Formats: sequence, structure tokens, C-alpha cells
Amino acid sequence: MAQEYQKVALIGLGLIASSMFWGIKRAGLAVEVTGYARSAETRETAREIGLCDRVCDSAAEAVEDADLVVLCVPVGAMAAVMEEIGPVLKPGATVSDVGSVKRAVIEAVTPHLPGGVHFVPAHPLAGTEQSGPRSGFAELFDNRWCILVPDGAEAEATARLHRFWQGLGSNTDEMDADHHDLVLAVTSHTPHLIAYTMVGVADDLRRVTDSEVIKYSAAGFRDFTRIAASDPTMWRDVFLTNKDATLEILGRFTEELFALQRAIRQGDGDMLHDYFTRTRAIRRGIIEAGQDTEAPDFGRVPVRKG
Amino acid sequence: MAQEYQKVALIGLGLIASSMFWGIKRAGLAVEVTGYARSAETRETAREIGLCDRVCDSAAEAVEDADLVVLCVPVGAMAAVMEEIGPVLKPGATVSDVGSVKRAVIEAVTPHLPGGVHFVPAHPLAGTEQSGPRSGFAELFDNRWCILVPDGAEAEATARLHRFWQGLGSNTDEMDADHHDLVLAVTSHTPHLIAYTMVGVADDLRRVTDSEVIKYSAAGFRDFTRIAASDPTMWRDVFLTNKDATLEILGRFTEELFALQRAIRQGDGDMLHDYFTRTRAIRRGIIEAGQDTEAPDFGRVPVRKG
Repeated sequence: MAQEYQKVALIGLGLIASSMFWGIKRAGLAVEVTGYARSAETRETAREIGLCDRVCDSAAEAVEDADLVVLCVPVGAMAAVMEEIGPVLKPGATVSDVGSVKRAVIEAVTPHLPGGVHFVPAHPLAGTEQSGPRSGFAELFDNRWCILVPDGAEAEATARLHRFWQGLGSNTDEMDADHHDLVLAVTSHTPHLIAYTMVGVADDLRRVTDSEVIKYSAAGFRDFTRIAASDPTMWRDVFLTNKDATLEILGRFTEELFALQRAIRQGDGDMLHDYFTRTRAIRRGIIEAGQDTEAPDFGRVPVRKG
Repeated sequence: MAQEYQKVALIGLGLIASSMFWGIKRAGLAVEVTGYARSAETRETAREIGLCDRVCDSAAEAVEDADLVVLCVPVGAMAAVMEEIGPVLKPGATVSDVGSVKRAVIEAVTPHLPGGVHFVPAHPLAGTEQSGPRSGFAELFDNRWCILVPDGAEAEATARLHRFWQGLGSNTDEMDADHHDLVLAVTSHTPHLIAYTMVGVADDLRRVTDSEVIKYSAAGFRDFTRIAASDPTMWRDVFLTNKDATLEILGRFTEELFALQRAIRQGDGDMLHDYFTRTRAIRRGIIEAGQDTEAPDFGRVPVRKG
């Protein structure tokens, strides 16, 4: 695999950055990878587990001489990071990010971008419910999509970032920022909010049902709790920065939910059956698109007794 | 493992019944297992794959001389099945079921129950998104809960059914029918309805976003589609027969959702962060209770390229 960048700097060392590091090493995509995290504890953990070739004590130090700087911090923290590193970025370098929303990132980063530095926002559609520097693994991006949102960036800088993400195992695509934010509101942001809500309701009901909600979670609720275990800071920022699209999709969701609720109240079995049949077809499409396996229950290995 | 029943009859040959059959064989829980399915195609498939020692062409034939009859049909079909088999049940036999609601099953079955036959409703909390006679496997119930709802049944008949389900790998518990229906409305029925709704919304939006909703499903939506791929007939019956509890939990869900929606609209980041932090704790509880693994993303094996 060609080295598209000599030196890569990862700012923020959570699930995505740590997976990127192991993926860069797997494919030999850079000569040196530096890293920085705001928390001293995270930096210490990173040094302990060999995450990054060099862990720096400031973002400015980490990005020095870097050909690619990837902002892997929550969306709400990006403006401050850019303000700090803007003055020390190398001319000709590329800045990118991995934020779950793109319009807000562009608005946060652009004012602090020095001339001669390329900015190519990106969003790898990959993750698990775990977070922190220990949670990464090289295979996270394999066969997942990474969406680039060039927003007028130079073609060669954009093409290079495509090749970099392909080197990490991803399929890549390009999208307009607003369209990205709408699609993600459907496929990710609203589902997460709904899962958080359902888990919150169950938590309230624990007083009524004791610990039974946890004990008997295998029947569907369990999958919601996994989604609702994702990083709270990241998700707070997603909802605050993709407000319009999320509220629009939430509005449609509530409308549909009320229609189904009404069918239940009125005993309209045909309506329910038709609806549930229609949604089955989408599952089929996702398996055909290679975005999940057909194995039942995700091929989850049964938990064995004793 | 002791044989609690000489002959077991499975009425309906979908995911649960076929898993029960393979589990009975694994543990040697019965001498003969007969089966019946309404659809000739299902009976043919069952014969082809060796599902049941004997596949019968009527429910009455299948239950003849059976010590345990398990109704594995959708809840809405149970009354008709009981009406047919009631007259031919062996005195002293036990009738049970695997329905996802219990009050409605009791109301459907009891009028057709002959004297001298025990009725011990049960609900194994296990499943996958797949259905049909080919979808079963012996391990489905391992370490999952099976809730018995004796509703006044004879103690010895109930104790026997406990041992039978334990032989299939389950942990067993007892509950009152109404309490069962409320707990399941929280852990299963409402989450399923919400998943169906979200997938329906995405389906509507496909016109807007082309196939992007499917292509980029890995970010959360994918898990909803799995839940929303479950059997439409079974789920229609669940909502029609557990109407009150489902509507109550749905009401609470909508209330919470509106509170979160309002926090997003008003930019109340603290409220969102607190909420998302609280829901994380529940996930921890579920892992500790052994109802899911801690492996990220359910230990899903990454889909490899080419």
C-alpha cells in the first residue's frame, strides 16, 4: 500500500482514532503517527498500550510537520482544537475529521483554517458501543463506508484522502454536507435518540418491575441498550449540531408511531400486518448490500452456562 | 437428563418449535416428538429435514396420546387449535404454549380445555429475526429465560414443565399473567413497535435519499432492521392481544421522546448528556446478568471484502 502521507496526527484518542492507528499500521499507510488527547489519563493509557508512535502533550506539538491531521474529538470540541493548531499547521497539509455531522464541523473548522491548508471533512460509518483508547481495532473500517464531504476542497487532496481511507479497508463515497446530515439523521441519529429514550423509559419502570427489565432483556430491548451505551458526549454534540435534520426525522417518526398506535387501539390487524411485511424487505436490502450478515441474531455466540 | 414426558407434540413448526425439537433431541427429553403445521409446504419441509420424529397431517393426529402438547402458533390462532384438539387430548396430559403474551392465551385456551388436562402457559424469551421450520437450532434457549405462568395449574404439572425447559437449557421463572404482559411490553413489544416504525420512516424516505438509507445503514439503523424483520403475523397478534400494556408503555415512551426533542430544540446539552449517561448503566446491568456479551458490536464478525 502506498504511503499517501508521511506523517499523520490523530487529535483525540477514542474508538475511531485508535482503530485508525491500528489500521494505518496494518496497511503501512504512514511513516509516523502522532497522537494527542486532552485527558492525561488517556495519553498515559495510549503510551502504555503502544497507541501512536509518539503521544504528545499538546495538540500543537502533535500536528507539527504533519501531512494529515485528523480531528477525532466530539463535534463540539473541534473549533477550539482548530483555533489552537491553525497557526502551526504545515503549508500544504490536509486537515480532516471523523465527526458524525458535517455542516457544523465545516462551520467550526473553516474560520480557523490557514491559507494553503486543505480541509476535507470525512465521516467513517463504523463504530461499536464502546469508547476510549483501548476500544480500537484495525478491522473496524473493513468494508464499511467512509463518506467524504470535500465542500470545495482541492481535487488532489480529496483523492488522496479517498486512497487513505480505502487503505484502512473502507469503501469511500462523496456527499454534500447537508445531504450527509439528512441521511445520517435517518440511519443513525434518530435511531440512537429513540434507543436512548426506550432505555430511559425502562429505567423509570424499574421501580415497577424491579430488575426484571434487565433480567428479561433478551427479547429485543437488549439491542436498544447496546445502542444506548454509546459515548454520551459525542451523542450530545451530534444532536445539538444536527438539530434541524434530527427534528425533521423525529417528526416523521412520531407521525408514523401515532398511526401504528391508532391501529393497535382500533384492532386494525391488516394495517399492522402490512406494515410489518413492508419493513422486512429493507432488511433483505441491507444484507444484500453487505452491511450485515444473514446469520441469525448477528451470529451472536450463545452465552454458555457455568 | 430424565424424560419428563414420553411423547411431546409440537403444534406449529416455526423458529421456536424447531429449536425445541433439536433441543429435545440434544438432551433426550422425550421418546417421540410429533409435529403439525397448518401449511402443507411447512410439513413437507419438516419431513425433508428430519424435523420431528413424525409429522402429522392434522393437529388432532399429532396430539393423540401426547403427554405434553406445546402450542407454537401465533397467539391469534390458539383458540382454533385448542377447539380442534381439546376433544382428543389424553387425560392427565399437559398443554402449554410459547406465546409472547399470556393473558390473551389463557383466555383463548381455557374455554376449550377438557377436565383432567393441565394447562401451564409458558414463554421462552429467546428468538432470532428468522422464522420458519429451517430456522431452529438446539442452542436457542441456552441460558435464556423461560417464564411459566401457571395461573392455578397443578403444582406437579408445573414442576415438570420447569424441568423440561431446564432440560432445553433455559433458566425458568414464574410470573402472574398480567405482570408478564407488562414486563414484556417494556422489554420486547414496545421496542419492536418502535423498530418497525423507524424502519417504516426510512422506507418512506428512500424516495428522498435513494438507496442511501440501506447503503449507509451500519451506523445504528441496521440493528433496527434486524428487529423489524421478525415474523409479521406473530407480531400483529402480539400487539392486538397485549394492547393495554403496549399502549401504556408507548405513552410513556412518547412523553420521554418529547422531553428529549425539546432539549434538542432548546440546545439543552446538559439534559441530553445526563440522560445518555444514565442509560449506559442499564447496559452494564444486562452484561452482568449474562443476557449479552461484552464483546463490541455483539462480537459480530466483520464482513470481509471480496
